[in-house]
Amino acid sequence: MNSPATRTTGQERLWSVDDHLEDILTTVRPLEPIELQLLDAQGCVLVEDVTVPVSLPPFDNSSMDGYAVRVADVTGASEEFPAVLTVVGDVAAGQADQPHVGPGQAARIMTGAPLPPGAEAVVPVEWTDGGLGEGPVSGMRAHSASPEGSSGQVHVHRPAEARAHVRAKGSDVKAGDRALEAGTLLGPPQIGLLAAIGRGTVRVRPRPRVVVLSTGSELVQPDEELSNGQIYDSNSFALCAAARDAGAIAYRVGAVADDAETLRQTIEDQLVRADLLVTTGGVSVGAYDVVKEALSSVGDEDEAGGGVDFRTLAMQPGKPQGFGSIGPDHTPLLALPGNPVSSYVSFELFVRPAIRTLMGLPDVHRSTTRAKLSADKALTSPKGRRQFLRGTYADGTVTPVGGAGSHLVAALAHADALIVVPEHDTSVEPGAEVEVVLLG
Amino acid sequence: MNSPATRTTGQERLWSVDDHLEDILTTVRPLEPIELQLLDAQGCVLVEDVTVPVSLPPFDNSSMDGYAVRVADVTGASEEFPAVLTVVGDVAAGQADQPHVGPGQAARIMTGAPLPPGAEAVVPVEWTDGGLGEGPVSGMRAHSASPEGSSGQVHVHRPAEARAHVRAKGSDVKAGDRALEAGTLLGPPQIGLLAAIGRGTVRVRPRPRVVVLSTGSELVQPDEELSNGQIYDSNSFALCAAARDAGAIAYRVGAVADDAETLRQTIEDQLVRADLLVTTGGVSVGAYDVVKEALSSVGDEDEAGGGVDFRTLAMQPGKPQGFGSIGPDHTPLLALPGNPVSSYVSFELFVRPAIRTLMGLPDVHRSTTRAKLSADKALTSPKGRRQFLRGTYADGTVTPVGGAGSHLVAALAHADALIVVPEHDTSVEPGAEVEVVLLG
Repeated sequence: MNSPATRTTGQERLWSVDDHLEDILTTVRPLEPIELQLLDAQGCVLVEDVTVPVSLPPFDNSSMDGYAVRVADVTGASEEFPAVLTVVGDVAAGQADQPHVGPGQAARIMTGAPLPPGAEAVVPVEWTDGGLGEGPVSGMRAHSASPEGSSGQVHVHRPAEARAHVRAKGSDVKAGDRALEAGTLLGPPQIGLLAAIGRGTVRVRPRPRVVVLSTGSELVQPDEELSNGQIYDSNSFALCAAARDAGAIAYRVGAVADDAETLRQTIEDQLVRADLLVTTGGVSVGAYDVVKEALSSVGDEDEAGGGVDFRTLAMQPGKPQGFGSIGPDHTPLLALPGNPVSSYVSFELFVRPAIRTLMGLPDVHRSTTRAKLSADKALTSPKGRRQFLRGTYADGTVTPVGGAGSHLVAALAHADALIVVPEHDTSVEPGAEVEVVLLG
Repeated sequence: MNSPATRTTGQERLWSVDDHLEDILTTVRPLEPIELQLLDAQGCVLVEDVTVPVSLPPFDNSSMDGYAVRVADVTGASEEFPAVLTVVGDVAAGQADQPHVGPGQAARIMTGAPLPPGAEAVVPVEWTDGGLGEGPVSGMRAHSASPEGSSGQVHVHRPAEARAHVRAKGSDVKAGDRALEAGTLLGPPQIGLLAAIGRGTVRVRPRPRVVVLSTGSELVQPDEELSNGQIYDSNSFALCAAARDAGAIAYRVGAVADDAETLRQTIEDQLVRADLLVTTGGVSVGAYDVVKEALSSVGDEDEAGGGVDFRTLAMQPGKPQGFGSIGPDHTPLLALPGNPVSSYVSFELFVRPAIRTLMGLPDVHRSTTRAKLSADKALTSPKGRRQFLRGTYADGTVTPVGGAGSHLVAALAHADALIVVPEHDTSVEPGAEVEVVLLG
């Protein structure tokens, strides 16, 4: 970011895709962590090592609905010669006080309930008569309807070894164990584990707040009437959705007209809710390229690391790009070109990795793969530019969709991959192997 | 759903995983579509064929910043012998009225601006002196700083063919074309296309509202103190996160104690915001299995299709399951077992496909693949049950994580796949090929 914000004449440095991306990824820093409620932390990256405070399960408990017994009392039991035990009460899950199980006794016990004192094993209810005296049963009657089930006698039809159907305290995790490491992405099972060990809040990097605004006096909101020379604003919608898809909280600002002062004020206004700003349009070499014009005087270009640099990239689409930071907090800003396909491809290549860097994710890039090109004729690509063509990928083969034109938004909506043609290639024959970026 | 809600004795039908899933998928219907704002429709399925109302682009326009010219005027132009044209004005994007370009004239034109009357082609500004009379330039000066750029003379250094750098009206999509078909999942590029053709709202199936509640008198909220026999509620957190992950709007109800009347009231209370209800716990054969007890008398079991059926499934974990519908709207309800791993596996197998069916998605299932088992010893599995073990998958190999115990929530948090052991297998040797369900 050491070149002036606008240039009108002379030869510029031609940036490679890789150099531009590296500049972004070495400049953008992960957001400061905050403590969030567990469900608010979904999709975020943990920044602390989480240690188990209490063993799981926290006490020996039954893995079955059945009867807690002493091993000696059921030795040799069979359906023909059952062990007959006196039921001294119920042990339900969450019950603080348990009956003591003495010789010749059993406690009716529910899955997850603590093994009562005196008991050594659990026999499943299916191995008993359930206290009904009529042979094996498949379950218990509800206590509310049949309270007598917690007393009387039970016939046990099979023996049980010590600790049978008992889950030992700490058999899942032990107090002091590492539950999750810093850097873990919190999905549903990780959130479940954190809740299970009693963590109601957790320290994570928050989702970045991304403000998306499009520029162009020709832009009209959908559902409005188009006048001569006008088109609908689509970039702010597509990029807002893409930012969310990448994990961000996205705010869509309506299209801003090509007036530098209006744009400057809009951006300064939005800074308060932005961890990252994304603009589209107004970054090229025209006389009304308002983003380039406006951002030369916004913010903190006098401070180290401040200012927005506008560049020419060796890529197609997406040649003109801006990157830098603005405002007192050096909020990063990516200024993308205005053509819908250019802006979307630029988002995938540069903004998505920036968002994922802000989130602290270990892997910020889309998956890539090699695929065989299926096409009627050779693809052509300008020399010295890395070209990104839209395609559909399936089973190791990629097929181009639409042409190379950067305005082919309809084709983009039917693509699920980008076909990469390297800088040194000017054509790719059908059947050749190509690199493919998988979108989603 | 033709069996009584509770059973205490006798032989039950043993349901296969496939039969239970089929019952769910043939019973649950996609939600009625509604008209949503474009960005609210992200991740939803379109239910209408969308036709292009106006061609894109809606008018011939420039693909470059440059000069709109007549072909004859630039024929044979070179840097040594430039064509010298009179600049008759600017054509910016969004500008309704354009200057007429006559013989010997040019209009300075910006990317996306309409080709003005009389002009036949665009020469990029880099092929000209930009009106400065000092050789080739790389761009224009901003109009606001240099208004004289829209008048005077321009030297053009290269010829241009008719229609050069002109995007033809309708070259992207034509009015009357099909933009998107019913059944399309709306991601960022589809939302961009809809905005581009002027659609501010769109008819889609909404995200289902899923109410998740856990049951169990032993359950304590995270961050509270555990007393004797208590554990933390983790299922409602994990399943809420998983429901969101599947595409739903999830509401987490706190844990409900094992009291049938309380549970019944809670469920009836929640019905107003539920397209799908998910409970955990209380579905087995114990005397305090409150979900089973309560749901036998909730809702509409007298009406066709109503009532909740509690079943034994030939699977591990996840043997006891409930499925049916309740309330005046026959809201579908899935009652999952209470062990954290059982409930999570059950969610993946049954609830996720139900949510995605409500959304109208064409593919409701997780991806599966075949993988080589990497393990120190053979996996064992009970005969006649389909077992789902937790594992990590990478590069065609799957490795089990933790054991088969359904309470091993810590192991689950480190898994990214389920290893499927079919009903007829009781052991799987290391190196064998197994089916794997990829989680996320």
